[in-house]
Amino acid sequence: MNEYLSDHVHLSDDGTAVVILDQTQLPNRTEYLTLRTAQEMFDAIQMLQVRGAPCIGICAAYDFYVLAQQVDGNTNAVQFLSELSKQADYLASSRPTAVNLRWALDRMLETAKRCAEYPDRLEVLHQECIAIHKEDIAMCRSIAEYGLSLIKNGDGILTHCNAGPLATSRYGTALGPLFLGKERGMDFHVFSDETRPLLQGARLTSYELSRAGINVTLICDNMASLVMKNGWIQACFVGCDRVAANGDAANKIGTSGVAILAKHYGIPFYVLGPTSTIDLNCVSGEDIPIEQRDSEEIKEKFYTEPMALPEVTCYNPAFDVTDHELISGIVTEYGICRAPYTESLRAVFEKKRAGLPYGTPEED
Amino acid sequence: MNEYLSDHVHLSDDGTAVVILDQTQLPNRTEYLTLRTAQEMFDAIQMLQVRGAPCIGICAAYDFYVLAQQVDGNTNAVQFLSELSKQADYLASSRPTAVNLRWALDRMLETAKRCAEYPDRLEVLHQECIAIHKEDIAMCRSIAEYGLSLIKNGDGILTHCNAGPLATSRYGTALGPLFLGKERGMDFHVFSDETRPLLQGARLTSYELSRAGINVTLICDNMASLVMKNGWIQACFVGCDRVAANGDAANKIGTSGVAILAKHYGIPFYVLGPTSTIDLNCVSGEDIPIEQRDSEEIKEKFYTEPMALPEVTCYNPAFDVTDHELISGIVTEYGICRAPYTESLRAVFEKKRAGLPYGTPEED
Repeated sequence: MNEYLSDHVHLSDDGTAVVILDQTQLPNRTEYLTLRTAQEMFDAIQMLQVRGAPCIGICAAYDFYVLAQQVDGNTNAVQFLSELSKQADYLASSRPTAVNLRWALDRMLETAKRCAEYPDRLEVLHQECIAIHKEDIAMCRSIAEYGLSLIKNGDGILTHCNAGPLATSRYGTALGPLFLGKERGMDFHVFSDETRPLLQGARLTSYELSRAGINVTLICDNMASLVMKNGWIQACFVGCDRVAANGDAANKIGTSGVAILAKHYGIPFYVLGPTSTIDLNCVSGEDIPIEQRDSEEIKEKFYTEPMALPEVTCYNPAFDVTDHELISGIVTEYGICRAPYTESLRAVFEKKRAGLPYGTPEED
Repeated sequence: MNEYLSDHVHLSDDGTAVVILDQTQLPNRTEYLTLRTAQEMFDAIQMLQVRGAPCIGICAAYDFYVLAQQVDGNTNAVQFLSELSKQADYLASSRPTAVNLRWALDRMLETAKRCAEYPDRLEVLHQECIAIHKEDIAMCRSIAEYGLSLIKNGDGILTHCNAGPLATSRYGTALGPLFLGKERGMDFHVFSDETRPLLQGARLTSYELSRAGINVTLICDNMASLVMKNGWIQACFVGCDRVAANGDAANKIGTSGVAILAKHYGIPFYVLGPTSTIDLNCVSGEDIPIEQRDSEEIKEKFYTEPMALPEVTCYNPAFDVTDHELISGIVTEYGICRAPYTESLRAVFEKKRAGLPYGTPEED
């Protein structure tokens, strides 16, 4: 099911460009963009035409491979690496908060360093970006299995922003358990925060859940409190853009508010994401930079006319950090981390470093 | 200052119609509507062209007087009262949650009963609706004085929805202390939740604060948590649509979430409103009906195109109830009520019933 969403970022048939579903056009139009230049790739990430932490990583890996073809020509290894390193820095600057972006680019750069002297260096980079994509599918599947172990058939789940197949490769992270459960004949009732100002919950989450036949109700962000009070929510599932070593988690603006409400109403709040989103170099959420975006997104974007006077200024942070004390568990492809996170996140990283296969809830 | 906003609901020059500023057209256009028929009056309230609990009451009183002129003719007292009673029920049904609406209509009906036999019954009703308006101005002024005693120069204040002059007659309730403080040369920094789905915070609150020269920053509802975490908020001021005997307060959807966040961050949360908003017949918030509105408001209103698929359903409650345990104080024209509210609200009502003048912070 939902296979049509799994291929929304891929190489063009001749392999010389990256093709992405333009997520800014959903839900009304299904349009694909062909990215050939570094500028086009930068813009696609910055303008959120491609978004979602894991998906940005996959896209950036393909971007890197396409740019490597352009750099290839008669360059020697030093020139090849120097130019690709510049391109990677440029792409990474398109969204400084997205750790997967830097992670994927660094992995491609490391591969380039290994193979820069090889005559088939482009083919090695091609295999590497394909591997990053395939690993993401496997990771999502594993996260989905763990997440599904936290809920039961019939539960109401609240989610914020979009961490479904559109944000990743397949299944998604926060929505993965719901897609996987649906495949197994389970029914959930999902409440999707619309997620202002860019409305990813309305435009993307309610779109992909609805298309997959999963029961979804769209609400404004400020309705989450009443929905919880009504007793309709048994768990909150959200994605993450970066998790610090102590478990503090940066995610779409508004996530920390959902976590505080969940705590107030006694509802478990789970963060779901791949280990690539965890940044042990960040001691706590205070080390995570918060991207500030333009007032226009709040006052004008999507509207037929402005909703506030020109002289009214806005504060428009793209993310907030949810304190680790508000998080019931962090669900990764290697298992569910619980407090104290400084220990459980490190344990997960050791499994990863040891090259162990992803876990399953049965084994844990 | 800001006098231009104080007259946004009034009788036409010849007294045969009600003139209102169409608040659905703000901030881009200043358009006045002339209401002559009960249907037009009903629509204006239901479509939120006139809104804000106290303002709806004032408007309904003027509406009643205009309709009384139309009913007057050759009707005897019984016919006069019977017809006006029907019209009042009709107008009251336009927004069932707004207790001020029913309160103002009942007060006009009671006056009509007293004067139905008089030859100058219309003039008596005329004086009564003017009195309701003037009392509201005096009430707002008194609420503003009490509210101002809770904050100090330079404070950051978060507000939700609109409870300023546009929602009342002058000063407003929740915003009253800020307008009054501004008159006295004080400076506050107001953070205004945009207040989805109808965006009263963007369209009205940021508009009237900005026009009055008060420092205001517009945020999306889901940014309140981060703004509080940043240490920028010293108090939350919100209005109310109905307060139950135990202090539970119904207000615009999202208010309860703001209160929960404020509690989490240790910020005082105040509800400001006239005693006419307090309904001692409601034992608790569970007795307050919550109006459900159309999905279109969430998915389509204001937008150039729909933000979710046609098959996606929405939950769209207009109000939520903030638990009294989350409320630091309820600020009325007779003073600031503190927990236990069952006692403090009753005490305020006794002052009111005794016909005492409104209080001031110095006397209390």
